[in-house]
Amino acid sequence: MKLKPKKDLIKEALTKQIAGIIPSREALQKVLESGKKLTIYWGIDPTAPDIHLGHSTNLFVLRRFQRLGHKIIGLVGDYTARIGDPSGRTTIRIPLTRLQIAKNLKNYKSQILKILDPKKTIFKFNSEWWEKMKASDLLMLDSLVTHQQIIERDMFQKRIADKNPISEMEIQYPLLQGYDSVALKTDVEVGGTDQFFNMLMGRQFSKTLLRKEKFVITTPLLENPKTGKKLMSKSEGNYISMNNDPNKMYGKVMALADDVIIVCFKFCTDLEEDSVRRTELRLKSGENPRNLKSELAYEIVKIYHGEKKAKEAEREFNQVFQKHELPKKIPEVILKAGEYNIVDLLTATGMAPSKSEARRLVIGKAVRAGGKLIDDFKDTIKVSPGLVVQVGKRHFKKIK
Amino acid sequence: MKLKPKKDLIKEALTKQIAGIIPSREALQKVLESGKKLTIYWGIDPTAPDIHLGHSTNLFVLRRFQRLGHKIIGLVGDYTARIGDPSGRTTIRIPLTRLQIAKNLKNYKSQILKILDPKKTIFKFNSEWWEKMKASDLLMLDSLVTHQQIIERDMFQKRIADKNPISEMEIQYPLLQGYDSVALKTDVEVGGTDQFFNMLMGRQFSKTLLRKEKFVITTPLLENPKTGKKLMSKSEGNYISMNNDPNKMYGKVMALADDVIIVCFKFCTDLEEDSVRRTELRLKSGENPRNLKSELAYEIVKIYHGEKKAKEAEREFNQVFQKHELPKKIPEVILKAGEYNIVDLLTATGMAPSKSEARRLVIGKAVRAGGKLIDDFKDTIKVSPGLVVQVGKRHFKKIK
Repeated sequence: MKLKPKKDLIKEALTKQIAGIIPSREALQKVLESGKKLTIYWGIDPTAPDIHLGHSTNLFVLRRFQRLGHKIIGLVGDYTARIGDPSGRTTIRIPLTRLQIAKNLKNYKSQILKILDPKKTIFKFNSEWWEKMKASDLLMLDSLVTHQQIIERDMFQKRIADKNPISEMEIQYPLLQGYDSVALKTDVEVGGTDQFFNMLMGRQFSKTLLRKEKFVITTPLLENPKTGKKLMSKSEGNYISMNNDPNKMYGKVMALADDVIIVCFKFCTDLEEDSVRRTELRLKSGENPRNLKSELAYEIVKIYHGEKKAKEAEREFNQVFQKHELPKKIPEVILKAGEYNIVDLLTATGMAPSKSEARRLVIGKAVRAGGKLIDDFKDTIKVSPGLVVQVGKRHFKKIK
Repeated sequence: MKLKPKKDLIKEALTKQIAGIIPSREALQKVLESGKKLTIYWGIDPTAPDIHLGHSTNLFVLRRFQRLGHKIIGLVGDYTARIGDPSGRTTIRIPLTRLQIAKNLKNYKSQILKILDPKKTIFKFNSEWWEKMKASDLLMLDSLVTHQQIIERDMFQKRIADKNPISEMEIQYPLLQGYDSVALKTDVEVGGTDQFFNMLMGRQFSKTLLRKEKFVITTPLLENPKTGKKLMSKSEGNYISMNNDPNKMYGKVMALADDVIIVCFKFCTDLEEDSVRRTELRLKSGENPRNLKSELAYEIVKIYHGEKKAKEAEREFNQVFQKHELPKKIPEVILKAGEYNIVDLLTATGMAPSKSEARRLVIGKAVRAGGKLIDDFKDTIKVSPGLVVQVGKRHFKKIK
């Protein structure tokens, strides 16, 4: 089946949120304009229970190709995750167990399908072919690459220079990922720039084993432009999940550094490029970053939870943090009425994990009871139903 | 079943023709003296149709352990041969096909059993387990070693320094050979010093996967003590095969350099150490090396073909080379009687592969016809039945 080539949309699909195309943008454009239906894949490792906003760029890029009529495959690296991509890591990764992977996989699809079209997205798992592969199959792949070629990869070079060990299993990782391109007979692979080496391996294997020219599209990583550090990393745990509830998601965006507002507008939303440029100008001309960040937070929550929930999250955030009012919904805890030492009260309500931690919170002026600051840990509190205890800015419990 | 420890024989088995023992000679001695029956293996790659005298050292060592009552396994690396050990090689080895391997395997057993006891020697093939191994099994082994550890191997270091490519398949070779020790649950591995790295890998895997301390016995390589170069190499083709017929074997030994007489006595025969020492003294005191070489040649032919054939080979050699007489048996070639230019005669009898090569042989004074030196390539020879044509010292054809 031939697709109708839509020149404007093709141009957008080949430029927006894209870092580079191998062998060239022009070559891929030619194929797209020919009307040929392509198979495009994006791989993701189930190394954490959810997907973060750093991944959304890939999904926006894929959605554009999906809207052009191409076949989109989300490849879950459930086999390779047991090995672990050495990308950017300085130490040997601890391989995941099957159980951990199964747990992490649970919510993957629903998160991805918040952006991609559920009716048009195919999911594959690389255990499907890798579990069947024999040692001799892997050795055949090994025969196609040289040690020198693998070791060229920047993160391997870094580990060697730093005298950090590299497991031979990690050395095999690019070959495994590369073979996925062959198994999927894919025309295009989309991935972050940190996947460039692995994606080129797939390009090489496709050429050798399928006589096929696989295109590679890289997307920018979500980084703080001031420090160059990754904004979100699954393996390091600091990320905003697509699965976060609206309030948490809104709050986490508001907690981001002002330096990253524009990159987040560019890569975590799919707003028109013109609109992002206007926001950038407002920031440069001195507008309070907080205004722009709330627009960002609203936009992001809208993507994953819809407009209504975005409005509610905005209202809630403003009520609690800006007007210092109590939030609408406070979790309740059952406690017998009576007099309680503040330390005992904090541990009994589960707001402090230990007495010593409770004391530290009180000394640090983080604790309020009935709206009143409590700064002496010998203080006694009269507890009765309806009393609100607060720790920090966002942690509330109401006595039932 | 406990073995009767024979202290004298154990001492000989642990020293004669041995380069080193890991972790120590004393540790292995202790186990041997305990009377425990051990499984001892020696691996050989079927990379040529026959086994050469450089391998005989290992077989003499194994025979001593066999006579002590231990279980001896000859492991044919029919699977790993498809990959090729990178030992000492500076370029990527061309993997063997199954067909080549099957062909090479054909005469292996009979050669090995000229030294080992046919009733007490077990043969195994590592395809037996490796063909069943899954990619994940190989990856498990990969996870047990670091890239840094593998790359330490001297021949890898040399190739890297010389910017010669190393295939990733070759990098896996030591892991495959190492796993053989696990599959065989072996107590001891015997091999040349060039196998030290691979044998230590097997020791490491045995420790990790079987909680077993595998001993490693290395034997010296057959080298020219003056140049340090290998005397025989299957992969380079310059070797004396255990399968060579008595005359060829005798002649090849006689063609060895005088410098290597003593190492060949030490490692290619199983003569008493005292007797070898006496030979060394005779050489040092100025005796004609040719005398000693004929003793060596006689001794070696005796090992593989028995005393009678050794005597015959000696007689034949003396007749042809020392008394300049014609050999007893000359291969015959049918040729129409008549006048032949010497160059045409050499190519027609198959004694030169081309006319230009035939001319070179004539110019180099290597050609005789009917006993007469022919040194002009324009010469014409009268050919009739019974005429003997000779190239060099040992290449004869008789016209039929």
